[in-house]
Amino acid sequence: MRVIVDFCIIPLGTGDGLSLSPYIAECQRILEASKLDHTLHAYGTNIEGEWEAVMAAVKRCHMRVHEMGAQRISSTLKVGTRIDRVQTMQDKISSVEKLLSE
Amino acid sequence: MRVIVDFCIIPLGTGDGLSLSPYIAECQRILEASKLDHTLHAYGTNIEGEWEAVMAAVKRCHMRVHEMGAQRISSTLKVGTRIDRVQTMQDKISSVEKLLSE
Amino acid sequence: MRVIVDFCIIPLGTGDGLSLSPYIAECQRILEASKLDHTLHAYGTNIEGEWEAVMAAVKRCHMRVHEMGAQRISSTLKVGTRIDRVQTMQDKISSVEKLLSE
Amino acid sequence: MRVIVDFCIIPLGTGDGLSLSPYIAECQRILEASKLDHTLHAYGTNIEGEWEAVMAAVKRCHMRVHEMGAQRISSTLKVGTRIDRVQTMQDKISSVEKLLSE
Repeated sequence: MRVIVDFCIIPLGTGDGLSLSPYIAECQRILEASKLDHTLHAYGTNIEGEWEAVMAAVKRCHMRVHEMGAQRISSTLKVGTRIDRVQTMQDKISSVEKLLSE
Repeated sequence: MRVIVDFCIIPLGTGDGLSLSPYIAECQRILEASKLDHTLHAYGTNIEGEWEAVMAAVKRCHMRVHEMGAQRISSTLKVGTRIDRVQTMQDKISSVEKLLSE
Repeated sequence: MRVIVDFCIIPLGTGDGLSLSPYIAECQRILEASKLDHTLHAYGTNIEGEWEAVMAAVKRCHMRVHEMGAQRISSTLKVGTRIDRVQTMQDKISSVEKLLSE
Repeated sequence: MRVIVDFCIIPLGTGDGLSLSPYIAECQRILEASKLDHTLHAYGTNIEGEWEAVMAAVKRCHMRVHEMGAQRISSTLKVGTRIDRVQTMQDKISSVEKLLSE
């Protein structure tokens, strides 16, 4: 089952607790290594692929951010699946942009 | 790795699209069969257990809701993990209620 | 416009960053003072009322948690509105429980 | 109070319920008219501005999507505020990309 996920990870208990970018960057490296399509935005990362592979990558991010020192993590995921047709992340954006350009 | 999840599933493309309770009820049955601790609230279900078991139950919900006729699903998950101490769903509520009663 | 909201506030940059219950408890006091129907669960609080009143209460929570010392906040909201019929938080739960008891 | 929001709106009860792009496109037009900085991604839209202005735009999106025929809406918002420093959506992305390029 294909899935498009929006993933936002928030580490807690990390020194000042304010600079999250080292943790986000490490998750980007994990996603890069996973070979899954992914796009960083200002409040999370979109990830596309097979359910098991995407969720395994999300788990690796949690485990790695804990290893980096975060005692606690709260993340938010939006999880989209559909069986009527195949739709990529780019398809979703393009269909909106097409309507806006008309 | 223990996890506390808040899971809210929204089926799309289901007849009138308005009555979601049959789909939510079916997910409750899946969670019941999974033996995971879970509590329904007005905008989702809290689930507690081992990461793999919880995520497997979430996937079963997506697959079952598709089987029931939903062509498309968008769900939202909040995913909490911590390595400093064990904390149950009830612990979280109790620690707030204790402060409120003081 | 009536709304049912699920609200989860995560303060960052708060000492150890791990004990969130004092902030959650303070938000419960704000919601109590707001006279809005609200129910705490293990991963957030459900709030019901008119859009403006609910969003004003959410903003007060952000402002108060900043005053308490959190330098940064990330919260998650699910926001439900419907125009086909009136539905309370309790209605949502009851309609699922009714199906489960059949 | 400045806020960065991630906003994802899901209309329910809209004919086939599957093609959401006309509703998303209409919300993009509302955000465009609002003069708020905003960026569409594959699972929502990031919006930046003053709390009141951003939340007013979100409410206009709900009202307009109901006018377009959606009987029910469930949207998800991530809401970030901080008082330690000013940070734009682009700052958030740049700080991660800087770490990745090192």
